[in-house]
Amino acid sequence: MITLHTWTTPNGRKPIILLEELAVPYTIVPVDLGQREQFEPAFLAISPNNKIPALVDDEAAGAPLTMFESGAILTYLAEKHGRLLPAAGAERYRVLTWLHWQIGGVGPMFGQLGFFAKQDDAFAIDHFVKEAERLLGVLDKQLSTGPYLAGAGYSIADIAVYPWIVAATERLGPQLGATLAGKAALQRWLKLVGERPAVGKAMAWSAG
Amino acid sequence: MITLHTWTTPNGRKPIILLEELAVPYTIVPVDLGQREQFEPAFLAISPNNKIPALVDDEAAGAPLTMFESGAILTYLAEKHGRLLPAAGAERYRVLTWLHWQIGGVGPMFGQLGFFAKQDDAFAIDHFVKEAERLLGVLDKQLSTGPYLAGAGYSIADIAVYPWIVAATERLGPQLGATLAGKAALQRWLKLVGERPAVGKAMAWSAG
Repeated sequence: MITLHTWTTPNGRKPIILLEELAVPYTIVPVDLGQREQFEPAFLAISPNNKIPALVDDEAAGAPLTMFESGAILTYLAEKHGRLLPAAGAERYRVLTWLHWQIGGVGPMFGQLGFFAKQDDAFAIDHFVKEAERLLGVLDKQLSTGPYLAGAGYSIADIAVYPWIVAATERLGPQLGATLAGKAALQRWLKLVGERPAVGKAMAWSAG
Repeated sequence: MITLHTWTTPNGRKPIILLEELAVPYTIVPVDLGQREQFEPAFLAISPNNKIPALVDDEAAGAPLTMFESGAILTYLAEKHGRLLPAAGAERYRVLTWLHWQIGGVGPMFGQLGFFAKQDDAFAIDHFVKEAERLLGVLDKQLSTGPYLAGAGYSIADIAVYPWIVAATERLGPQLGATLAGKAALQRWLKLVGERPAVGKAMAWSAG
């Protein structure tokens, strides 16, 4: 059985989306960030970087597997079940390229914008708004070339980016609302991905 | 033949290290960030996110392959040559976990610290110094458990992190020098990785 230690953040929802898409059994252990549960010793033993999500698979090939980092977890689950990440060829590396683009770009930059938006630091807010707008422009342009982020097929790259765009829509309206609304290909994709039952279920998950 | 579009930054050196380790032929096309060459249309056609490194492999299985994002490029080259990333099992996912930890954590946080260290923004500098110190603590603790980042074997996770720690040592001394110097396991690993001939050659690469 897979046990997912997670919370209701964009990174936390990514593996829930994938587990729902794969239709494999899993258990969620909520790690309440509001209660600072990510700093408790039992969680640190699983996730030495103090961050959710983390995954324990006690039926992994060989021995029980413990891992963290949402992008690595998506890759693991996709490879284990042979879905949503092609095993070889150009399409595999298009998926990994756009997955890494989210991990190294959208995630940290939108995350920092969310942090600084609550602070009185106009210079930093402007810096991260500009970078977020740039990333949204890259995303919209890419999505104007095909239905999904890595081309014809829905993949873990879409799963990685989607919750961040939803969170930006919900929480960064003053900073990014107009930019998001003006991107036609991005809005089309947001609707397309959002209509998937697995995505709807994962985005609706709450610990209570 | 592999063509690598890159520059003398931490992310830019990662694939050079790996190509040297693999001892495969490659050509470098320098993309001079100081001259803003990453914004030229010819480079954008390869790397729509405007960032180095990007890779073109005209001998990839099937068709010529174009990709970007340093973590994805490391994964591609390691999988193509079957080295420095195990093909399956717990060790593969330990390597991917720590690779993603660099891509989503060390890279963007050290990168933002480098940016804000040149600005007059004490609040942001303090924010990113604290996060960088936290990440260095996680790294040192992990390296106290084994010779390399993902355990017994040298991997693309080490290759991803190493140039960032060297850059921090060289350029973020006022912010991180004392923290870096005080971490014994980290200093041991820095010497161990730095003594590899491939690493030495890649770190010495310059465009001129």
